[in-house]
Amino acid sequence: MVRLEPDSDTSGKLSILGPLTRLWLGFVGLVNATRSTMLRLGKMVWKLGADDPRKVFHGLKVGIALALVSVFYYARPLYDGVGGAAMWAVMTVVVVFEFTVGGSLYKGVNRAIATFTAGALAIGVHWIASKSGETMEPIVRSTSVFMLASAATFSRFIPTIKIWFDYGITIFILTFSLVAVSGYRVDELLELAEERLSTIAIGVSICFLVSIFVFPVWAGNDLHALITRNMDKLADSLEGCVDAYFMNDETNGKKESSSKKSQAYKCVLNSKASEDSLANLSKWEPAHGRFSFRHPWSKYQRIGAAMRYCAYCIESLNGCINSEIQAPDYMKNHLAFICIKLASNCSKILKESSNSIKSMQQSATIDFFISELHTSVEELHTLLSQLHTDNSPLIESLPLITVASLLIEIAKRVEDIVDEVDELANAANFKDVDDEKPDKKNGVGNGE
Amino acid sequence: MVRLEPDSDTSGKLSILGPLTRLWLGFVGLVNATRSTMLRLGKMVWKLGADDPRKVFHGLKVGIALALVSVFYYARPLYDGVGGAAMWAVMTVVVVFEFTVGGSLYKGVNRAIATFTAGALAIGVHWIASKSGETMEPIVRSTSVFMLASAATFSRFIPTIKIWFDYGITIFILTFSLVAVSGYRVDELLELAEERLSTIAIGVSICFLVSIFVFPVWAGNDLHALITRNMDKLADSLEGCVDAYFMNDETNGKKESSSKKSQAYKCVLNSKASEDSLANLSKWEPAHGRFSFRHPWSKYQRIGAAMRYCAYCIESLNGCINSEIQAPDYMKNHLAFICIKLASNCSKILKESSNSIKSMQQSATIDFFISELHTSVEELHTLLSQLHTDNSPLIESLPLITVASLLIEIAKRVEDIVDEVDELANAANFKDVDDEKPDKKNGVGNGE
Repeated sequence: MVRLEPDSDTSGKLSILGPLTRLWLGFVGLVNATRSTMLRLGKMVWKLGADDPRKVFHGLKVGIALALVSVFYYARPLYDGVGGAAMWAVMTVVVVFEFTVGGSLYKGVNRAIATFTAGALAIGVHWIASKSGETMEPIVRSTSVFMLASAATFSRFIPTIKIWFDYGITIFILTFSLVAVSGYRVDELLELAEERLSTIAIGVSICFLVSIFVFPVWAGNDLHALITRNMDKLADSLEGCVDAYFMNDETNGKKESSSKKSQAYKCVLNSKASEDSLANLSKWEPAHGRFSFRHPWSKYQRIGAAMRYCAYCIESLNGCINSEIQAPDYMKNHLAFICIKLASNCSKILKESSNSIKSMQQSATIDFFISELHTSVEELHTLLSQLHTDNSPLIESLPLITVASLLIEIAKRVEDIVDEVDELANAANFKDVDDEKPDKKNGVGNGE
Repeated sequence: MVRLEPDSDTSGKLSILGPLTRLWLGFVGLVNATRSTMLRLGKMVWKLGADDPRKVFHGLKVGIALALVSVFYYARPLYDGVGGAAMWAVMTVVVVFEFTVGGSLYKGVNRAIATFTAGALAIGVHWIASKSGETMEPIVRSTSVFMLASAATFSRFIPTIKIWFDYGITIFILTFSLVAVSGYRVDELLELAEERLSTIAIGVSICFLVSIFVFPVWAGNDLHALITRNMDKLADSLEGCVDAYFMNDETNGKKESSSKKSQAYKCVLNSKASEDSLANLSKWEPAHGRFSFRHPWSKYQRIGAAMRYCAYCIESLNGCINSEIQAPDYMKNHLAFICIKLASNCSKILKESSNSIKSMQQSATIDFFISELHTSVEELHTLLSQLHTDNSPLIESLPLITVASLLIEIAKRVEDIVDEVDELANAANFKDVDDEKPDKKNGVGNGE
């Protein structure tokens, strides 16, 4: 009841104006609202395109592929060869063309294989059905569709099939149902099948050509870049986090920039889904750039998992750093130098690993950095055992001790990341850097 | 060179046997390998079905929907009404039918809207093209296809459109291209459009009916169950973790079961993707069971995020617990009781919250539990400040202090989870439990 009052007040004011004026005001309001919405939308779309121009190119590429396919429809001689089924070529382009080359290849190969096997199977069933008498025929057809569709749909839940053939299963069921059911009417099944396969081949080829040769977006490249970028972010935020904690309030400006940098690890926490999908698509891609056909993409997933484990710890570290209780200054100063050094060691190792992946070369200095890290951990242990809490209650040093303890845990997890990077380096045959000092770990069989 | 020897040895033995025997041995090997593969696959498939029989039902439901659609094809009178385009009905069923009701509705509604708008637009373009002279006609058609396909493809990168209309965009491009291109040949476009829409309507209706009325799988139900299950797991693993750390070696059997339970939180770390997809699909679902049409599904995502933040901390806690350094027993005993109590408080709160979500009732006791938690945190603070490390170096107590510190952080994050659950309770109008003592937080406007 109370809430109605302001409303009736406004409508009272409005009723003074004539109906035309009100209409005009409404119209102006509408125009303004539309204009501001369009402006906001325009800005958002512009930012989207400016941040990643490949998205704009992707749109254009789909347009090009469709325009190419329609050439097959307009050009008479080809039209007669391919027949009315040219729409299957259009359909293939629309559903197969994906953002990455791997995506297009996955869908194209799946579509081709599924159409072929389902078509062959359906023609077999059609032959059996046509021999089984008028009453049995629809039963044979329906039962076969029911059974195959059920089994194929269920098979999608098997993880390997889900990863490699999810789209293929849809096309398999689709083609089988269409052929088995339409077989009831059409007798020229084989001719139809040939037509269908040739149009799909045209559509798939156009997709492959455009996606590989016009500004290609390789899933493998993206995965490689994602992992190294995340590793750099992890390094930055670890250093930023610890710097921000130990820095004095005088250097406030720098503190702020550090704490901004320190939030970068959050990207790592949520990148599992994109890593998995990129790794699955990368496996479909041919050799490109520095990557061979059987590049060990799944190792990137393992590196990603190791990085996430490290990021969980950084997340907890961040929680402790923002705690209200602060350790007394003399204690903080006692540990500041070594903690900052330890964080910088970890950060250096991560950056070196990331560079090693970027350049696809074994790092010559990583073993040295790791021994430095071990020294820092030892030193921190020593300083911690010298630390006395007699003058102040332990409670005050709680966050400081936790930070130190989490840093030691983080150092461990950084080493796990290095191990995974090493696995990748071995599996992908990263080059040894020509270096005077022998590489202890991977010095075996280098041209000897 | 060295590796070849055993091989040549074996082949030496084999060469004594006749070629027929070798063929037979090879055949037996093949049969055995196939048999064991089939057995393993069979077991895996059986387990898949036994763990979640809804997956088997889903397969059968797709079969039923396809069988129903083929009725429209076999029954003559209907066949004449719908025409050869009945294949569009089959196609619709195959691509629209999804595991959850929300998934089917999302795809069905997208398909219907996209086909309608794209068809209308394409007929407009067709009309313009047919008026623009023989030379201009193919140019108008191709340009319009190119421009619309590019723009629509690009629009998929806008997050809102990606979430709500990703599938619709594909169908939009597909329909527009087919109609605009085929319009070059076919003149009965309007008739074709009507036919297409009616077959799609038939396909979509069959999908909706089967997916809603035959053993429906509601995405909303699944999301609700996932969140509460994860919350219980979080509670179990927190308790298991802390119990395992403070328990003596004598009670080894119990320790093992605790540490097994303590790994349950790992599910929470990786459930973001399923939570997001279920929440998006839930928004398409009509009222079902205890959920209204506009149930605040996005609040579940927020609860999920809060739980993940808590799980990150538990992950770090786990790392510290498995550390090699162990605190001296007198120290451990000093804190054991309160740490176990704190963990059990957190666990109780999580279980109470989970029960409150399960029963969709405001919890009457959660405020009491939270005040208990606050008391425990205070007590832990007090005990920590009484703790003296004079007799032993601080380094030995490092993991213990870290465990305590992380437990305090976890308690904070558990409260964040409770806040998010509270938000859900308010948004979804959870019932107040009739209780003697007044509910401080939500005692407003209960029937007054």
